[in-house]
Amino acid sequence: MLPSHITYDVAMGRWEPNTRVRLVVAAVDLFAEQGYDATTVSEIAERAGGLTKTTFFRHFPDKREVLFAGQELHARLMADAVAAAPDSATPLEMVGAAVDAVAASFSDDRRAFSARLRTVLAANRELQERAVAKRSALAAAVTGALGQRGVGEPAASLAAGLGVRAFYDGFECWAEPASQRSLPDLAREALDELRAALVTLA
Amino acid sequence: MLPSHITYDVAMGRWEPNTRVRLVVAAVDLFAEQGYDATTVSEIAERAGGLTKTTFFRHFPDKREVLFAGQELHARLMADAVAAAPDSATPLEMVGAAVDAVAASFSDDRRAFSARLRTVLAANRELQERAVAKRSALAAAVTGALGQRGVGEPAASLAAGLGVRAFYDGFECWAEPASQRSLPDLAREALDELRAALVTLA
Repeated sequence: MLPSHITYDVAMGRWEPNTRVRLVVAAVDLFAEQGYDATTVSEIAERAGGLTKTTFFRHFPDKREVLFAGQELHARLMADAVAAAPDSATPLEMVGAAVDAVAASFSDDRRAFSARLRTVLAANRELQERAVAKRSALAAAVTGALGQRGVGEPAASLAAGLGVRAFYDGFECWAEPASQRSLPDLAREALDELRAALVTLA
Repeated sequence: MLPSHITYDVAMGRWEPNTRVRLVVAAVDLFAEQGYDATTVSEIAERAGGLTKTTFFRHFPDKREVLFAGQELHARLMADAVAAAPDSATPLEMVGAAVDAVAASFSDDRRAFSARLRTVLAANRELQERAVAKRSALAAAVTGALGQRGVGEPAASLAAGLGVRAFYDGFECWAEPASQRSLPDLAREALDELRAALVTLA
């Protein structure tokens, strides 16, 4: 059986969907084995099944972006969930739907891959900065969607930031090798804790 | 009269304080004139008064970091203000003190320089990512200081994020060439708006 991230990432490929996923997996494996800096695009392409650099560059602008291939999809999943929330939903309920939607795209058979990716990111400052930028991009997408639903500023971006944080807090727990719980579960719990803290601060 | 950022940045220099400030000003000027990518460390050093690359590298690891020279000082100002807040202060009041402290370090004669810096950052994705990382570092410093004051998680990081955001929201208004108000004023106003939004969301 294919790991679920293949089905999942297929939606993102514009050319030869499986190639894209193979490149992502090959990159994470190589970065984990020999380090990010030491790995070349040619090596990634070769490991992905004898592909060429040219093929790599049809999918990704550089070796860094291969680690953030999910950004566009994750942003869309979150924004779409906000757009689809019922009229009666409060801003935090809309954000809850966004967190559920993105978390549901990570099934448990991706846990080991995600743990490896997390280790790669943690080992490199440039990658950490790019990861922070991904968080900002997700927050911006949710903020925009909340704005479309009539939530004003700064409440929209505040709520969006809470949702993105809940997702990542949940992800950190989920990507622990010993973790048993699902990401939707953990992300929801994180959001509940953030909501409680909000009440305390307010 | 020296622009106040000279007095201000002097505190950060470990070698020849004025050299450090001159390098920052030269870098921002060159980046604004001819672009970040097109500017070399040698050109920055030369513009800063006939200095050498070697001197530059005694102060900064690369040409990017010259734009984030204030990070350590800003983090310290915010953390120290949290530490110095009265025992009776709520977490948001401690954060308010942190915002006041960092905002007060920007006097109005730095406005034009800050506007130029803002334009340089906005023109380059790598710099924007680094700017986001600076925000994270400031938030981490405030979170740590709140933790020392007994504020638990996730309330501490939530409150810290609010403070950093208020500072930057205020900064964006302040760095507008047409702006007349002081940064402490604008940052306080931004924090008040965020606090009101927090109450609405909660």
